[in-house]
Amino acid sequence: MNKVAIVGTGETKFSKNDEDVEQLLLESANNCINSIKNCELRDIEGVLVSTNSNSNYMGAILSEMTDIQPKISHSIEHLCSSGTNAIIAAYSYISSGLADVILVSGVDSATNPGQVLKWDISRGDLEHPIFWATMLTKNHKRKFHTTEEELAIVSAKNHKHAMDNPHAYSNEPKTISEIMNSKQITEDLRILDCSRSCSGSSSIILASEEKAKKISECPIWIKGIGQKTTSASFTKNNLDEINSTRIASENALKMGKITSEQIDVAEVHDAFSVCELMALSEIGLTTNENSGEFVRNLFNTENRMINPRGGLIGAGHPLGATGISQTIEIANQLQEKCDKRQISNAKTGLIQNMSAAGTSSSVMVLQN
Amino acid sequence: MNKVAIVGTGETKFSKNDEDVEQLLLESANNCINSIKNCELRDIEGVLVSTNSNSNYMGAILSEMTDIQPKISHSIEHLCSSGTNAIIAAYSYISSGLADVILVSGVDSATNPGQVLKWDISRGDLEHPIFWATMLTKNHKRKFHTTEEELAIVSAKNHKHAMDNPHAYSNEPKTISEIMNSKQITEDLRILDCSRSCSGSSSIILASEEKAKKISECPIWIKGIGQKTTSASFTKNNLDEINSTRIASENALKMGKITSEQIDVAEVHDAFSVCELMALSEIGLTTNENSGEFVRNLFNTENRMINPRGGLIGAGHPLGATGISQTIEIANQLQEKCDKRQISNAKTGLIQNMSAAGTSSSVMVLQN
Repeated sequence: MNKVAIVGTGETKFSKNDEDVEQLLLESANNCINSIKNCELRDIEGVLVSTNSNSNYMGAILSEMTDIQPKISHSIEHLCSSGTNAIIAAYSYISSGLADVILVSGVDSATNPGQVLKWDISRGDLEHPIFWATMLTKNHKRKFHTTEEELAIVSAKNHKHAMDNPHAYSNEPKTISEIMNSKQITEDLRILDCSRSCSGSSSIILASEEKAKKISECPIWIKGIGQKTTSASFTKNNLDEINSTRIASENALKMGKITSEQIDVAEVHDAFSVCELMALSEIGLTTNENSGEFVRNLFNTENRMINPRGGLIGAGHPLGATGISQTIEIANQLQEKCDKRQISNAKTGLIQNMSAAGTSSSVMVLQN
Repeated sequence: MNKVAIVGTGETKFSKNDEDVEQLLLESANNCINSIKNCELRDIEGVLVSTNSNSNYMGAILSEMTDIQPKISHSIEHLCSSGTNAIIAAYSYISSGLADVILVSGVDSATNPGQVLKWDISRGDLEHPIFWATMLTKNHKRKFHTTEEELAIVSAKNHKHAMDNPHAYSNEPKTISEIMNSKQITEDLRILDCSRSCSGSSSIILASEEKAKKISECPIWIKGIGQKTTSASFTKNNLDEINSTRIASENALKMGKITSEQIDVAEVHDAFSVCELMALSEIGLTTNENSGEFVRNLFNTENRMINPRGGLIGAGHPLGATGISQTIEIANQLQEKCDKRQISNAKTGLIQNMSAAGTSSSVMVLQN
């Protein structure tokens, strides 16, 4: 298996405006291409697009707009984890030897069609993600004694981090009290417990070992990959766990020969506050019982280890871009390029992304 | 690079009825799973879906319906070549070592949204594929002296082959005269020069060398892969050639250390009759000038070497399934499982698929 590294990154601002997906893609792709040197457009052998948009042939469209004529090009869709899955696809094309340099660009608009899974009729009228999120939240409070304040701290922490992320959707601080008193949308969910679907695009360039060393002074290596799909229907889930994240995380750490204690920084999928607590438990950084206290300590000590770019709650959630934006943050942290939000001396980082109530998860471990 | 083989195949009937894509997927996937032995559902580590459908999360949906809990799962879209691109993605996951056994299922319904590329505004009112096809046809007739009868022979041959394919859309013979006198839709195109968008699904299982030898008595090896995207807009094309097919084909043959003379059987993308003639030239089996005569000879000698399952014109063109169905035909030919349409002693086969007026192509070379 050939080694694969991240060598370039580029993003757009994430915003609430409904923007043209092709233009967003072009902007982040150009920012990404301009971030690298010693690499011509003709060296880029793959253009993958991750999106939930209904537009067709986006791989070829982005290729033409950027003046790239790749070997490999297509779109990838898997709801919220489309972006991480596209990066893993690019990894495998390079690792298998079919390509040396691949651009992966993710995008969605604020009105993208991936927010509700129509097929999952087991949800009945409760098809919107807030309904599985409220069930997970109720269960977490009852079973693990998580308090409303601890849930609010997840959101307060991530909003705070987002203030130092120039691409983030939200640049306003939110106090614990503001969050706990924000608009109630279900018995257990407030509006500020939720990430927001928005418009945005993120791009990343992956390269083989030989190319990576030419293109980047500090390539970031993808050391471990884990993925798991347990179902598509929410009602097949156990409310106590995100089984797919646990399996994906174990496999990624095993492949990278890394323990969870070595993780210096992580981006986890906080579509809703409770998801961050559960993800941290499944990755092995804490337990569900202690997860509220774990996050409280991070917040109180201003430790940015978890979701330094602001997570989905603070940075916004343009579905097809999210997994790529998470990966960019970890790569930039390991390269010490994160300015105000930089974590000192980070050597090992993890990305956890998931789809549709955690019925599917993708995890990657990166090292510099 | 680890070796990868095709070990199982399954299809549905291709039909003009607008059918439910999830049910079609399930039918071909089950037929495929039932075609293999010594492989449990838990051994299937990837479920990829190729489709132009606007349905989301199809990889997870098909996983749940088939009771598979894979590592890797997502959808792939690239218009007409979605299916071949999904197979190549599966190849790379296996070749890189991320998975050992992957199910790839393609599907589209007769009313799929991939038939017109709205983005390509360079076509103006002429956005439907018949307009680029008529320009290619006019050019082929003028420049290479191809006759209307030779174009009709492509369709007559492929309709004839389809009669022996139980999954084909068309099971009726069409004479050269019938084709030449069928409904005129542009100056240079008759309705029987065109493939038909239809409903259908095709599934294939790929495996690593070790697994392939356990699962199949006659695994079919993917020896060469070539892909190229030159643009997304038709008006960037040169009417004389399908440049993307030439490059993809050269690369596939080079990777497989195979010459075009070794090809015993090929499935090529005949969305329109002229496409078959041009593809055969780009692959190196003939030249554009001689392509009409080449196909006439095949027809007169009842040689089924090109498009034995009936091509897109005879078998139908459910976009996301087409590339998989083409690959199944070549695999089955190399396994001598094609009954009435079997070519004797075929050792080497080629699949050529393309999207959007040949702005993108994918080619694979298989051997038994």
